[in-house]
Amino acid sequence: MGSLAEQELGWAIDALVRHDADLGEQAAASYMTIKRLGRELQDEVTVMIANRRPNADDLRQLMTVLKIAGDLERIADLGRGFVWRALAVVDQDHLKSLMTSLRFMIETAQAQLKDVLDGLARHDVEKALAVWRKDQDIDAMHNSIFRELFTYMMEDPRNIGIYINLLLAAKSVERIGDHATNIAEQIYFAERGVPVTTDRPKRDDTSSILVLPPNLSSFAAEPAGAAGS
Amino acid sequence: MGSLAEQELGWAIDALVRHDADLGEQAAASYMTIKRLGRELQDEVTVMIANRRPNADDLRQLMTVLKIAGDLERIADLGRGFVWRALAVVDQDHLKSLMTSLRFMIETAQAQLKDVLDGLARHDVEKALAVWRKDQDIDAMHNSIFRELFTYMMEDPRNIGIYINLLLAAKSVERIGDHATNIAEQIYFAERGVPVTTDRPKRDDTSSILVLPPNLSSFAAEPAGAAGS
Repeated sequence: MGSLAEQELGWAIDALVRHDADLGEQAAASYMTIKRLGRELQDEVTVMIANRRPNADDLRQLMTVLKIAGDLERIADLGRGFVWRALAVVDQDHLKSLMTSLRFMIETAQAQLKDVLDGLARHDVEKALAVWRKDQDIDAMHNSIFRELFTYMMEDPRNIGIYINLLLAAKSVERIGDHATNIAEQIYFAERGVPVTTDRPKRDDTSSILVLPPNLSSFAAEPAGAAGS
Repeated sequence: MGSLAEQELGWAIDALVRHDADLGEQAAASYMTIKRLGRELQDEVTVMIANRRPNADDLRQLMTVLKIAGDLERIADLGRGFVWRALAVVDQDHLKSLMTSLRFMIETAQAQLKDVLDGLARHDVEKALAVWRKDQDIDAMHNSIFRELFTYMMEDPRNIGIYINLLLAAKSVERIGDHATNIAEQIYFAERGVPVTTDRPKRDDTSSILVLPPNLSSFAAEPAGAAGS
């Protein structure tokens, strides 16, 4: 499931640079496979618990496995959505710099996923914590892309559909980062038996900033002639 | 957890009609409570499985409980985000009709949540299936609001921050609807022992429509003067 989720993000990166409808089909098929594997995993865990009667510690590990599988499924779902959105806006020359930022963002998310899966395989709590901390970088990139997109939208409202797509694509990557962070927390909990208690990278820093971004709230506060009131 | 999630959506509805920052605090506190309850529930289920050694059928029910708890946590998280977004755009007179549509959408989501929790309490598969089918209504409302918002954005780009907030708020409600649908599927599975196999209301109909909305892709295809290419 982890490899497939990583591959899904690879397709998302590809979709930013080449307009190939097959990528959308592959991403969709791959997601369905991950979903099926998730269901099978749940069945296997259930049967294993029923037959082997694990102790409380082993049970916690099994619960962790199911939670991580859930995060991987969500990552693949978000990756699939990203592919479709990216395919819709590729070939727009004037968007090159934005697409580059977006590519850097999803490449970072893919690296985060790879690292957290390595951490999982090696029971490496430090590696998991590094992923957990680094999620703030993705949140920061997300903020930058959002603000940049806002300026495009104001300058070029006729292309708003494209910008909304990119905005939702960036938001998907931010959420992919959150799911990688969730996996890191699960690894920590499984290995140490307690939740991560140090300062947590806030999950929705970005969305709360977006509610009233200082530069935009000033725009919003201005009486706008266009909208009928 | 179900009651708290319902209450969270109640605050979301309130936040659309009265600008009260306390609603944001309440919604945040309530979400933290739901999250804590979710962790406690997971611990209780783990201890229960370890001590009582349930058979495979009972185990499946317990897994279902955990999955439903996960959906309730997500609903509360989305409701919390909605409250903040709604608080940022209340008092905008010219947005009355949009706010009314959004309120109708979140009221429908709240009703869906109530119904699916009733279905859960009464082991009522028919009620769960009704919720599962009705999710299409929320998706349809979501599409309408998106398209309406697009026209506002094009007419009034200076207020784009407000429209993006409303767009993300509507998207949150669509996802709340998806989580209610997930719960319905879990009820079905727990009661019948097989997954729902009839035609499924597609989860991301709306997002795939949004990728290239017919009316907007034609806008996008036009050479736009404003963006530097």
